[in-house]
This record gives sequence, structure tokens and C-alpha cells, in this order.
Amino acid sequence: MRATLMYEAGDVRVETVPDSVVEQPTDALVRVTASCICGSDLHPYHSMPAGSGPARMGHEFIGVVEDVGRDVATLAEGDLVVAPFAISDGTCRFCREGLHTSCEHGGFWDGLATEGGQAELVRVPLADGTLVALPVAPDSDLVPSLLTLSDVYGTGWHAAVRGGVAPGRTVTVIGDGAVGLLAVLSARQLGAEQVILMGRHRARTDLGREFGATDVVAERGDEGVERVRELTGGHGTHVVLEAVGHRPAYEQAFGVVRPGGTISRVGVPQYSEAPVGFTSLFGGNVTLTGGPAPTRAYIEQLLPAVLDGSVQPGRVFDRTIGLDEVPDGYRAMDAREALKVLVSP
Amino acid sequence: MRATLMYEAGDVRVETVPDSVVEQPTDALVRVTASCICGSDLHPYHSMPAGSGPARMGHEFIGVVEDVGRDVATLAEGDLVVAPFAISDGTCRFCREGLHTSCEHGGFWDGLATEGGQAELVRVPLADGTLVALPVAPDSDLVPSLLTLSDVYGTGWHAAVRGGVAPGRTVTVIGDGAVGLLAVLSARQLGAEQVILMGRHRARTDLGREFGATDVVAERGDEGVERVRELTGGHGTHVVLEAVGHRPAYEQAFGVVRPGGTISRVGVPQYSEAPVGFTSLFGGNVTLTGGPAPTRAYIEQLLPAVLDGSVQPGRVFDRTIGLDEVPDGYRAMDAREALKVLVSP
Repeated sequence: MRATLMYEAGDVRVETVPDSVVEQPTDALVRVTASCICGSDLHPYHSMPAGSGPARMGHEFIGVVEDVGRDVATLAEGDLVVAPFAISDGTCRFCREGLHTSCEHGGFWDGLATEGGQAELVRVPLADGTLVALPVAPDSDLVPSLLTLSDVYGTGWHAAVRGGVAPGRTVTVIGDGAVGLLAVLSARQLGAEQVILMGRHRARTDLGREFGATDVVAERGDEGVERVRELTGGHGTHVVLEAVGHRPAYEQAFGVVRPGGTISRVGVPQYSEAPVGFTSLFGGNVTLTGGPAPTRAYIEQLLPAVLDGSVQPGRVFDRTIGLDEVPDGYRAMDAREALKVLVSP
Repeated sequence: MRATLMYEAGDVRVETVPDSVVEQPTDALVRVTASCICGSDLHPYHSMPAGSGPARMGHEFIGVVEDVGRDVATLAEGDLVVAPFAISDGTCRFCREGLHTSCEHGGFWDGLATEGGQAELVRVPLADGTLVALPVAPDSDLVPSLLTLSDVYGTGWHAAVRGGVAPGRTVTVIGDGAVGLLAVLSARQLGAEQVILMGRHRARTDLGREFGATDVVAERGDEGVERVRELTGGHGTHVVLEAVGHRPAYEQAFGVVRPGGTISRVGVPQYSEAPVGFTSLFGGNVTLTGGPAPTRAYIEQLLPAVLDGSVQPGRVFDRTIGLDEVPDGYRAMDAREALKVLVSP
């Protein structure tokens, strides 16, 4: 089968590897019909040290079940399924609380040396817990939107939920990538009154406005903070959704949050330490929350509006490529030629 | 009048200064009948640079109203009042939300160059918003417990409220000072099932057990983290109340918090940066919250149980001194001879 491997920063290849097969009784084998490249894939694309790879890539996919282990009870050959970016058993104490990313027996795709979504086949561990069957055909026009349930829509939703977005709240979203734009959509779904999108790529912020952003701030740093304060009577917003993961975005976040407000991070932090003292978080009783989104917890909740077309999160995809073109897909996303690339193997 | 001044680290003096008087129409002049020394007063006692002082000290007091400005409507001469550690107007948007520490017109006592609670008289700005009248006499046995409403009880309560303590939750309290012990009391009042107190001063942790701690962990650092994990099935507690303010306490906090849990800080951070990345907070979806407690917001709520004696937060006071002995009070608290020192001018 063909699969995507990253050898080091900037070096992505599609190669022939041994076919994935069912190994454990709880596995399912899925033939991928749609996958994609994630903004978070660009982090190793910038920083992966030489000699540490190759790593299989891809953690968002939809596909058809081709085989199941003997203990898989809820799925059968031929089912179309969507896979969240975390593997989870669905039964442990954390899964029962909706925190599937902390599953006691699960993990992340990058913990599996020989599996990844940017490939033809994927062995999915803990298939009953991890996968969700979809009531559409593999060639449905809804596939791009359904694919966002793997990660980016669920991640934007998680940011908004953890941030406490509710009717009447004011929200700043930092980052105009797919997660940021879907955080805008989520914040509006949850009733936010004002949603300020901080981003400087016009095509993206225009889509953000269609998703419900009431204001767009293109400035960054102190100037961006100042602009948000002007838009909020000097106080900042109740909630800040940080969808980037770099330290300047974190610093922008505490610059625009209102006293007593919440910064909810879903951009994977590319820093280990940051300001948390009196003048950044503590003095204003600011809450810092967020983390990897347990997207599995949200799929059933978000699915109906996707199926009936009342939301179209799949609009974040602006390019579709074949599997062998994946290296160019990374390049295009990195160069910001493409917002988010869908891979049709 | 006599008042306490700190000249630099380790140098506290009680001196004669000009009498405080009503200056603004919204001021009240209060003759202090009970005040105290705070754990947070020990931070400048350790670190105040030479040449930056002297600073007036004290932000917790009870006293009798001796004069009021012409705009003061709710207080009259002779009222016994308690002052929270923050000055607030009670009417701005933040006060109406219960975040009096972010009052648009208020501030902290250390923002006033010529006032402080460790003195005979205090000019209290925004008296209607700041002060609360107490239905007892100045020599009531309830005074020590009522005095904790200024800061340490309200601060422990704030930690527990912001941390989301609720029936069935498990809680770790870091720090066996007055705030930590009253965080234990607060967590139990809010229904916590298990309250693990991390502290190593036996007399204090014994009082913590009386306030409701179910377990005491004397070890610190990695060993302390390990002990808490043993007591919680390996997972840590839902909530961690951090009542110290030094970085090792912060590091202990993310070591003992359960995935999806909350660290609530009320110890004033003596650091500006700290770990917030994937392995500390983000990966486990840990929330970091807390800040200076708006104790004014809690006084009416906490008062009834203090007045009827069903809680006795004043038990944190283990020494009473006169105003001229305040320098020795600082020394005794710093040496941990005294847990909390009450000053009876």
C-alpha cells in the first residue's frame, strides 16, 4: 500500500509500505476514502530533527471498514466510518467523562509507528470506541464536512466549549487556520454575541466572516491587542480561543482577555514555558484552559447539523489532491497557498 | 497615630505618622480594633529592595467607623466594619459580576502610600462599596473569625469556588498556611469528598484535619506528587488549590492534578513564567485559574456560618500582639513560630 512518511523537517515522501492488517481482536482495518493534512502536521514539517524519522503521517480520515477483529461488535465490513485524531476505548473513566484524549488505553496516531491516515489503509485499534459509522456513501458531497469531525471542527468546538462560550459572551479567536475558522463557527453556534477574528489572510478571514465573525483584526502583537481593546470598550473579550500554538499567540491572548475571562488553547503549544504571573493571568483572575480536543466526544452532537447541511465546516478545504501529491500538499499549506488540503487516495 | 512601615526586606517598624482623616466625600475613617499579618506580607519581607520604601503595611482589618465623607450612605459613626483586602466601588461592571478585585475605580491597599491596616486609623476609600458592617461588638469572641473575611477565609473560598469544588470532587490543597487551611475548610463546605493537604508543619496540618482534610502529605516535590498519586488511584485529584505562590508549589500542582482537572491558584505568584506546555497543562486538558480573591463578593455569603459559630476560621490565629509588637510578629510568622498573628492595637 502507499503511505505518507516524514523523514525530517521539509522532507515528506509517499512510499510503498507493507499493507496494514488487523492485528488485535479489537482492531478494524479501514480503506481510506478521504484524509487531509493538518495545521499541526506543519509543526514537525518545520522542526523534525534529521535521523528521528521516518514517521507515518495523518490523523484525520474517513474510510470503509474492510476487516474487523473478532471482538469488534459495533462495526462491519462495508461501513463508512470517521476516525477522530485520538484512539480511545470509549469505556474507561476518562472516556465516560468525555475526555477521550486521556483514555487509559488509547493514544494518538503518532504513537503508532506503522499507521497513519495519509495512506491507503489504516489499522484502527480499539475500533468500537474510536470509530463512528456515517450514514452516507463514500462519494457523498458531505464528506469534506464530515471529515472535519476528525479534528478541526471538533477542535474548534472544544475550544469554545472549554472557553465557556455562551449567549451574550464576547469572543476573540486568534488564528485564521482551519481550527480558528471553525472556532468562529462554533462560538456563534454556542451563542456568542461578538466574535473578533485575528488573522491577516483575506481569503481566510472572509470565510471567517461567513462563519460568523463580527469583526476582523489583521494587526498582530501590541497593535492587534490595541485594536481588540478598541472594539470591546477597552476591556477585551470574555473568551479568547487560541488556535495557533506559538508563543506570540499566547501573549496576544492574555493581552485581549477581559478580567475574569478565559483563554482556551487548542493550538498545540510549541513552547514549554510562558507568562502566568500577576501581570499576565493572575492579577485579572484569568483562566487558562484547553488541550487536545476529545473530538470523539462531540461527533454525535455535531453530526446532525452537518448531515442536514445547516453548517458546512468542510468549506475550510480549498484544495483536493491525490495521495501521491501529498508532499506538494504540505508545501502548499506551509506556503499558505492552501488553507487545508483534502487527500483523495 | 501609630502605623507599620516596611523599609526594606526584614526591616519593619512601627512609627508615629500623621493621623489619617477623611479626604474624599466617599471615604470613611476607621479606628482599627483588630488587624493581622498576612502570609503575603512575608513576600516583601523577603524581597523588598532597599530604597524603595517605606511602605505602609496591612490589608486586613476590623474597626469602628469614626467619621464619614458626605457621600457615604450606608455607614455611620460607631458601626463596626470589616474591610476586604481590595477597595471597590460595588457598582462598576466588574463588581456587579463579583470580581471586585478588578473594580474600575478601586485598587489594593498597597496602592495607597499613606494607609494600611496595621495601624490605629485607616482612611477607607469608596467606603460604601468596600466596607461591610458587622452585627457584633468590637470585643466579640467572633472577631478573629470575622477578621478572616478580610482575606484568608475569602481567599481559600475563592480558590475552591474557582477550582469548581463540588460534591464528590477530590481536592489537593498545597500549603499549610492560613489560606491553605481555610481552602481545606472551604473545599469541605462545598462538598469535596477527599481533601489531601500537602504540608509539613504538624500543628498546622493537625488543624487542617480538624477543618476537614482527609489525608495529609508531608513530602514535597516528586515524592509528594508520588504520595498524592498513591492516594488517588494513580490519577491525581480533580482540583488542586495552590496557596503558596512559589514556583515549586506550581510544579507540584500540575504533578498532582487529574487529567481534565483544575489548578486554582490564590498564592500570589512570585514568578512570572512557568510551564504551560504539552506535558504540564495542555496534554491533560488541565485548567489553570485563580487570582486575587474578590473577598468582598463572599462576605455576605460566608457571614451567617461565622456568626452562628458553625465554622471557626479564626482558629488560624495562634498569637495575639499589640501594634508596637508588629515587627516581632513578622519575625515570628517568617520563622514559622506563629501561623497567623492577630494585632490588637
